[in-house]
Amino acid sequence: MHTPTDAAHDLRHHGDAEVREGGLTDLAVNVRAATPPAWLKARIAASLDTLAAYPDGRAARAAVAERHGLPVERVLLTAGAAEAFVLIARALAVHRPVVVHPQFTEPEAALRDAGHEVGRVLLREEDGFRLAPGDVPEDADLVVVGNPTNPTSVLHPAQSIARLARPGRTLVVDEAFMDAVPGEPEALAGRTDIPGLVVLRSLTKTWGLAGLRIGYVLAGPETVAALERAQPLWPVSTPALAAAQACVAPQALAEATRAAHRVAADRAHLLAGLAEFEEVRAVEAAEGPFVLVRMERADEVRVRLRGLGFAVRRGDTFPGLGPQWLRLAVRDRATTGRFLQALDQALTLVGRR
Amino acid sequence: MHTPTDAAHDLRHHGDAEVREGGLTDLAVNVRAATPPAWLKARIAASLDTLAAYPDGRAARAAVAERHGLPVERVLLTAGAAEAFVLIARALAVHRPVVVHPQFTEPEAALRDAGHEVGRVLLREEDGFRLAPGDVPEDADLVVVGNPTNPTSVLHPAQSIARLARPGRTLVVDEAFMDAVPGEPEALAGRTDIPGLVVLRSLTKTWGLAGLRIGYVLAGPETVAALERAQPLWPVSTPALAAAQACVAPQALAEATRAAHRVAADRAHLLAGLAEFEEVRAVEAAEGPFVLVRMERADEVRVRLRGLGFAVRRGDTFPGLGPQWLRLAVRDRATTGRFLQALDQALTLVGRR
Repeated sequence: MHTPTDAAHDLRHHGDAEVREGGLTDLAVNVRAATPPAWLKARIAASLDTLAAYPDGRAARAAVAERHGLPVERVLLTAGAAEAFVLIARALAVHRPVVVHPQFTEPEAALRDAGHEVGRVLLREEDGFRLAPGDVPEDADLVVVGNPTNPTSVLHPAQSIARLARPGRTLVVDEAFMDAVPGEPEALAGRTDIPGLVVLRSLTKTWGLAGLRIGYVLAGPETVAALERAQPLWPVSTPALAAAQACVAPQALAEATRAAHRVAADRAHLLAGLAEFEEVRAVEAAEGPFVLVRMERADEVRVRLRGLGFAVRRGDTFPGLGPQWLRLAVRDRATTGRFLQALDQALTLVGRR
Repeated sequence: MHTPTDAAHDLRHHGDAEVREGGLTDLAVNVRAATPPAWLKARIAASLDTLAAYPDGRAARAAVAERHGLPVERVLLTAGAAEAFVLIARALAVHRPVVVHPQFTEPEAALRDAGHEVGRVLLREEDGFRLAPGDVPEDADLVVVGNPTNPTSVLHPAQSIARLARPGRTLVVDEAFMDAVPGEPEALAGRTDIPGLVVLRSLTKTWGLAGLRIGYVLAGPETVAALERAQPLWPVSTPALAAAQACVAPQALAEATRAAHRVAADRAHLLAGLAEFEEVRAVEAAEGPFVLVRMERADEVRVRLRGLGFAVRRGDTFPGLGPQWLRLAVRDRATTGRFLQALDQALTLVGRR
């Protein structure tokens, strides 16, 4: 379904605003708990010895390139995926951008801030928020899609995303959460056979580096060069470069895979618990480190959950969703158990049980 | 003197490229030696405990505002002054930007990258690289000037800069090196009575934080809001925010003042030493932590100095200068003594003694 842009949603609302007051157990922000690990923090701390020198991103860029089997010309390090969205919105010649929703709102916000009119493709609950052929208008010359998608947790088949590529179209795939999917079977990162493909990656979620601002773009050399020209000088800090290099090393990738398997088990536990609530429906086949759930009066439930010590992410700021939706981060079994008890109480308090 | 833009200079050359190979004593980069101090490094290291959370810039912004006696609406934290130049170039409605040269080349490069034609005001050696009335064309709606100016080390009187303000004109004053001037007598930071004033500040040079990417903009609330809208989400990292907050505390400001006095004494020593070379002329009345010098065959001297273990900054990439210029960072007496000996040898080697 394709609809014209409307501005009814607060695209600049993010989960971090829901946990700022502190003291709450955080199921609102999709960062893996107990991160960054001590070894990574030590690597970052060691980089502080060279802060007086300007950042030199060459080693980190080469390491990221090697991790994806790509030449360095296809890699651009950015100050988080958020910077990448701004660069894409400003540096590429785009006339008809389209964003596939519901998804992370920052790409559309960045496109709008850059003066673009942004078309929306709204995936539907009744289709399981999956892409269907014909969803994206043929004349779109920039398409943004998340995989796995935040907040639906849907993992689109690589093939159904690759099918969106067209001559003259830039296809932006936000794979910020792909490293939380064991084995990354639907990843397009590293592919060079899809024209116009731009893959975004983040190290923030799996490694707990939201505060450090580090991510990267994989794209054709001309696109990388265009985005790089729009970056400020020295765009990525020395500690962030140290982290990037550390997180793409083989040992770190193995650790990320183990973490991804743990997330899958924890998510199964959460989904099983949620299934016991008649009033709650989770989007099926969740593959990310979070789950999207639907219930009546979810906005009230969310407030009650805060009173009970749990922060969850409101769904109503995502285009295509509404006040009946909440996003829940996957946490360890003990935390999830306590959360499910709190959810039971919250539902009772709002008169839904 | 006002000249049309030319592209003969490599505006993207910076001193850090001259010291990358390592092993050289660095007089090319204007970062204070032996920085960051241990107490500051400890503060930054402590911030690594909160990396999993997204950066929250409110406390640092408030601290910077307080340091300059301004409301927070007049403060914007940026990922180094380099980001500020890109924001100014992209977010403000500008039709006739002019940059006062010779100066740091990044503002002009950022303006050009944003599609602007950039006019140049070239200050003249015979005027001591000082501003004179009438230098800046009346119709310029954006004027960029550095104070003290990199690379000339000239400190313009606050009044002669304030005189450049006009209704409808944005006046950008790059005060990246102002905290190296004892007492900051010519600072415009903190002034709210000058229409269109935008002051840029850096914490990089005095505190040795080039690798961390932190600086800030002081401007009217509307300008700050416009620049902020052009920033990516979470533009400044948590470690950089911690550093900003630490560096504007009263104790840190006192330390910066002591450092500035030491720089002044060390600069006097360097200038006295240079005065003994008949072949070398330093720009007089230097007030920054560097000195601009003129000599015949400076490019060859620079190469010889590298052979002798010293990196100095070439001057020929600065519009308004040429291959006869070098910029020298002010270092401690011992380093300066060894440098002056090397300079003597280098001049002999190129047949200038």
